[in-house]
Amino acid sequence: MPVATQGTVKTLTTRQVEELDASIVLSNTYHLMLRPGADRVARLGGLHKMMGWTRPILTDSGGFQVASLAALRKVNDEGATFRSHLDGSLHLLSPEKAVEVQEKLGSDIAMVLDECVLYPTDDASVREAARRSLDWAKRSLAAHKRPDQALFGIVQGGVDASLRRENARALVDLAFPGYGIGGLAVGEPTDLTRVMTQISTDALPTDKPRYLMGAGTPGDLIESVAIGVDMFDCVLPTRNARNGTIFTSEGKLAIKNARYTDDEAPLDPDCDCYTCREFTRAYLRHLFVAKEMSGRTLLTIHNLHFYLELMRRMREAIEESRFDALRSDLAHLDTASG
Amino acid sequence: MPVATQGTVKTLTTRQVEELDASIVLSNTYHLMLRPGADRVARLGGLHKMMGWTRPILTDSGGFQVASLAALRKVNDEGATFRSHLDGSLHLLSPEKAVEVQEKLGSDIAMVLDECVLYPTDDASVREAARRSLDWAKRSLAAHKRPDQALFGIVQGGVDASLRRENARALVDLAFPGYGIGGLAVGEPTDLTRVMTQISTDALPTDKPRYLMGAGTPGDLIESVAIGVDMFDCVLPTRNARNGTIFTSEGKLAIKNARYTDDEAPLDPDCDCYTCREFTRAYLRHLFVAKEMSGRTLLTIHNLHFYLELMRRMREAIEESRFDALRSDLAHLDTASG
Repeated sequence: MPVATQGTVKTLTTRQVEELDASIVLSNTYHLMLRPGADRVARLGGLHKMMGWTRPILTDSGGFQVASLAALRKVNDEGATFRSHLDGSLHLLSPEKAVEVQEKLGSDIAMVLDECVLYPTDDASVREAARRSLDWAKRSLAAHKRPDQALFGIVQGGVDASLRRENARALVDLAFPGYGIGGLAVGEPTDLTRVMTQISTDALPTDKPRYLMGAGTPGDLIESVAIGVDMFDCVLPTRNARNGTIFTSEGKLAIKNARYTDDEAPLDPDCDCYTCREFTRAYLRHLFVAKEMSGRTLLTIHNLHFYLELMRRMREAIEESRFDALRSDLAHLDTASG
Repeated sequence: MPVATQGTVKTLTTRQVEELDASIVLSNTYHLMLRPGADRVARLGGLHKMMGWTRPILTDSGGFQVASLAALRKVNDEGATFRSHLDGSLHLLSPEKAVEVQEKLGSDIAMVLDECVLYPTDDASVREAARRSLDWAKRSLAAHKRPDQALFGIVQGGVDASLRRENARALVDLAFPGYGIGGLAVGEPTDLTRVMTQISTDALPTDKPRYLMGAGTPGDLIESVAIGVDMFDCVLPTRNARNGTIFTSEGKLAIKNARYTDDEAPLDPDCDCYTCREFTRAYLRHLFVAKEMSGRTLLTIHNLHFYLELMRRMREAIEESRFDALRSDLAHLDTASG
């Protein structure tokens, strides 16, 4: 899912996201509730109508952003109290409020509010956060009313295997239509991310979407799909594009590098995105160095195409029972992009 | 002509400029010779290929940019010596060099190097600049080699009617395939711009394009067409869009204004551009306030469409012999956008 934090995929018009054939985008409840505000979005006909986007939208619950606010927040059983990064105003994000806001935004998939702990965190706090997240999941289910919106649960439990397994099973008993895997890729070693991801997917039903929240590099996507993950969201392709870091079939490249000054090749010779069909590395480097916004747009188009194409290739390979062969073919991406 | 200073219309991909159905864009020789450099552009196959733009391109000669450098330049009969605004390096822009650079860029229309004087300037300097510009026009013609590129002369003469008339007639004797009208809209009162424009167009052949360089507001375009101008370039639609100032059929609006916070109307109810078909003022204001680049892209699409549509309407009215009626209908734009 390309990330449309504030109701737009950064640097792209909605038409450009359509041209990339993205099937779903993610927007952030935390950002949208503060600006332009959930009631305003609702008055404008919901997020789809506001953005002019007719395909599905997933909204997160705001839990992760609130966790990232650190000193600006206070969490108790009622919910998370936090100060806006925009104007310092005080807000309470409770499970019920997170559901209410997402119903107003009108996303197709909403996420329950969870308490996400970063790595490392002491055992007692991890346990407490998992217990609280489960309690909040139940309250979210009870508060949720929109029949045209799916509400996903979120597995927590830090890097404690038995706690994570137990948390996942309790969520499965609540019969959510899909599950997020949260609290991973928050600072822990990659090996641990993989183990915890697999423990989570193993405990979740295979006929429901399993969504690894916030991951990752191209290698992360491949390895996570290999252990049962179906959905991802990540700012890497878009943020890296704006910083001039490009994903290619041969690894990453930094477009500002002087070696590309006269390079007539496309960003990635194996890519058929608009940017690669039409423009040379030399031109894209020129736009980037000259600080032209259109350069960032063209780099974003390429990076998103790279990610979406990677997912399309994996889906196709799974359907044709040749995923392992594809995974071997793409093994170089893991280190090349790490 | 939308302005593509550094080889891109700011905030837009080439495809978006195509979708706007612009028939020609302008690029700046001064900027491109400094970065990425004329030889580099030539190695990349010329400006058209580099930008992926198949329609005509006009390049200016760099004269106006050099005039704007003020303290950084020195002009004598040989040419203009100036320091780069990028790295302070010293460059000589002579009439021959300006032609050579534009031939390397491969534009369809090149402009002769002229000495542009700003307003007010003492009579002797204006006279000296007009004499020098005429001399440079002759040298440019002599230096010009590309048969697939038109070289336009540029009328100078400040706000001195007889000097301007005399300068125009001398240029006409040189039989250029088209003429720029330079040195106007550089600080003088609008009335004087109009009078000097008309003196210029009156002295130029009606069967050759007459191009008022660097103008202007929608009202300026209408009034200048009324006195015989065929072509314009201006950064107003693109620069204003990036600053949130929007041209509409009812005058200008500032999108950041709080009154648009909940406004479900399009920017201009009479407009059928992508931005107006798909998005509300409320959403565009949100993107602008949230500093999303896509907001500036959408506003640029609208402002350029407004300008291009205005030109299309004037062309159509002229062909159907009802230009005066259209001019009356649009009279409110002059003050509304002034």
